[in-house]
Amino acid sequence: MSEFKTVRGMRDLLPEEARIMRYIENKARRTAELYGFKEIITPVVESYELLSAKAGEEVRSRMFVFKDLGNRNVALRPEFTASVARLVATTFRTEPKPFRLFSVGSNYRYDEPQKGRYREFWQSNYELMGSNRPEADAEILLLTDSLMKAVGLKGYKFKVGHVGVLRGILAQENVEDKVQNAVMQLMDKKQYEDAFRMVEEAGMSQKGVKVLRKLVELKGDKVFDVVEEMKSCVEDYEKAVKATENLSEILKLISESGNKINMTVDAGFARGLEYYTGIIFEVYVPDLDIALGGGGRYDRLIELFGGEPTPAVGVAHGIDRIMLSLQSQKTKPDLDEEKTVMVIPIQEELKTEALKIAQTLRSAVMMVELEVMGRKMVKALEDADRRGISYAVIVGEREFKEGKAVIRDLKKREQSTVEIGKIQESIKK
Amino acid sequence: MSEFKTVRGMRDLLPEEARIMRYIENKARRTAELYGFKEIITPVVESYELLSAKAGEEVRSRMFVFKDLGNRNVALRPEFTASVARLVATTFRTEPKPFRLFSVGSNYRYDEPQKGRYREFWQSNYELMGSNRPEADAEILLLTDSLMKAVGLKGYKFKVGHVGVLRGILAQENVEDKVQNAVMQLMDKKQYEDAFRMVEEAGMSQKGVKVLRKLVELKGDKVFDVVEEMKSCVEDYEKAVKATENLSEILKLISESGNKINMTVDAGFARGLEYYTGIIFEVYVPDLDIALGGGGRYDRLIELFGGEPTPAVGVAHGIDRIMLSLQSQKTKPDLDEEKTVMVIPIQEELKTEALKIAQTLRSAVMMVELEVMGRKMVKALEDADRRGISYAVIVGEREFKEGKAVIRDLKKREQSTVEIGKIQESIKK
Repeated sequence: MSEFKTVRGMRDLLPEEARIMRYIENKARRTAELYGFKEIITPVVESYELLSAKAGEEVRSRMFVFKDLGNRNVALRPEFTASVARLVATTFRTEPKPFRLFSVGSNYRYDEPQKGRYREFWQSNYELMGSNRPEADAEILLLTDSLMKAVGLKGYKFKVGHVGVLRGILAQENVEDKVQNAVMQLMDKKQYEDAFRMVEEAGMSQKGVKVLRKLVELKGDKVFDVVEEMKSCVEDYEKAVKATENLSEILKLISESGNKINMTVDAGFARGLEYYTGIIFEVYVPDLDIALGGGGRYDRLIELFGGEPTPAVGVAHGIDRIMLSLQSQKTKPDLDEEKTVMVIPIQEELKTEALKIAQTLRSAVMMVELEVMGRKMVKALEDADRRGISYAVIVGEREFKEGKAVIRDLKKREQSTVEIGKIQESIKK
Repeated sequence: MSEFKTVRGMRDLLPEEARIMRYIENKARRTAELYGFKEIITPVVESYELLSAKAGEEVRSRMFVFKDLGNRNVALRPEFTASVARLVATTFRTEPKPFRLFSVGSNYRYDEPQKGRYREFWQSNYELMGSNRPEADAEILLLTDSLMKAVGLKGYKFKVGHVGVLRGILAQENVEDKVQNAVMQLMDKKQYEDAFRMVEEAGMSQKGVKVLRKLVELKGDKVFDVVEEMKSCVEDYEKAVKATENLSEILKLISESGNKINMTVDAGFARGLEYYTGIIFEVYVPDLDIALGGGGRYDRLIELFGGEPTPAVGVAHGIDRIMLSLQSQKTKPDLDEEKTVMVIPIQEELKTEALKIAQTLRSAVMMVELEVMGRKMVKALEDADRRGISYAVIVGEREFKEGKAVIRDLKKREQSTVEIGKIQESIKK
């Protein structure tokens, strides 16, 4: 037996899964087009400096970091946003905004492998840069909804929050940025008591802590009611109030333009990445307790990468997680089941003729396996049958001399002799 | 200005190039289907042990090698074949043959960057495993020809040789495998004198050296003549004679089944990888002096990876090199130029209505940018014009109350007022 295997946390996708992955990827690309996003392809290997700049300790500590042969500090990208920010801060610096940029590909994080979490994972990533307006946020949420619908996912739900509410309170209470980041990390992990202790130690008022305690309890599906409660809860914190108004405006835009998104607003919701400044969201299905996608607004990131101040909102979708959900929902993506043909020469001497027929069928856009094993016809037919091939075209000497071949329908177990030029037609009918 | 940039040897593909890349990738996938190949997705990160097992010193020394956080020796794949061989030697071990496996994705080699050569590059890779027959070799050459045709490449030419001819002579002259590999490497780099010196030192007969000297001069487009000359040139070396017969049979199968491939046979042709055992080939265009694709037969590889003895033939195509050739040939791939629409509300208050219209058009599969910058209409129209948008849908209060909107054809500079439900129709006509 071979001693070789995949590296821990990595995996192979065999044909059936690969097909579903490509199907989702195509839907992601198609959705990007519908919303006016253009694809860019950035490298998997980027400088460590770039990737670690705003990743936050959580992500930074789990990156695949190494030195290339030129002794450069490099890493495998853990996400797309740093690369897109680099492009916007350099190549696209002088281009008129907005930018709608889309990427799809593999990312790398050294996580503990578990269901739906691999060290190599695939994402479709969308960034709308240049607009600070609620229309832009609404577009990103709607695009995500469109993609989930397009792949046929059922029962998915958005969880929505706004970083500006929590940060607004912390800022007005003079909690410094570094502590804010740590608090948000704790909130993200739902370690609320640790978070409250930390803000108390940072000198937050008892009133402030009370507001935070109330906020983390505030959540529900009646989204406008929840947002109103949030607003009255934070009434003494001006920036937090503004944030609730912004959230309300985004949600109104979505619902008043006739879009129905299944959604919970969660006032205590935080996300792992440090760079968010506005709305944040994730998408869940009941079957899987990790997010299928998530994103939000990050208005200061491009500046931090040395670019022009550029408000931005984006989202990343986990393609392999979506695949897992479809599989557990037993949703068969609506893939074209095209008819496949195996062309089998009856004797060795007829292989040139068999190849000729195979090429003719391929030029008529048929999916053809040529018998290349030199097997007896019965063996080849057994193999074709086992692998779900639709038709066998059997090339025999007598028929070939008459310009004909035998077509065998492997499902119906019927066969007939037809002119070679008409094989295609008789299969397609 | 931002200090961030891509790592040396890596690059971004901006929307225009990304689109061509995806176009070629789709043609590669489509070609795979026509020839009955199934896609597999294997990891970019594999064990160093696997990737270095049969790569040859040339490739091994240019791999991106590092330790992951679990102290495993890993590397970024420099090619697909080792991963496919791993699968065939393990997961597919008990599956009936043949296997027709296809992959597409990025590979990594620390080469000196130059035109058409980056440290991250994309390939489509096909392996037909389980058959040692000339039909299988013919299929791989024909598939390559089909792909080059499908993308619209002009003037490409196959360079074909057979490793079995040179190796057959070396083996019969008792040149040991290690020296054989070194000689093949020198031949690959056209350092013939060094190669001859090496075989002389290894004790090869003067007759043998003379045959080699004659072989490296033997090449031409009249392929059957060249193969006949090869055969008579090596007549004293039984295995080499068999190899010329095998080459002849493959080429006959292709031409006698009515396929015309533009081809040169080159008797002194060798390829960098050590594992080839039979026919080898590369594809060139006049515009670029590096190969657009290449492959060959390697009948002993799977065994070396611990699998069952499995004859195999495969090919990899350089997707980014094909893109470069298309660009230098000024071939515009026949991409769907779909009509794009920008939806612009005349006033801030109409943005909900604008979003509603955008969603209606998207659900009718139109590519829509919603104005998200809050710009005055004139500014938004200028921007739409500059970026080649086909139509603007202008949402004004008066028209909206009548259930209408203004459509402006940005190419023809005409506009008309139409019912909202008929926007789609009047754009598509």
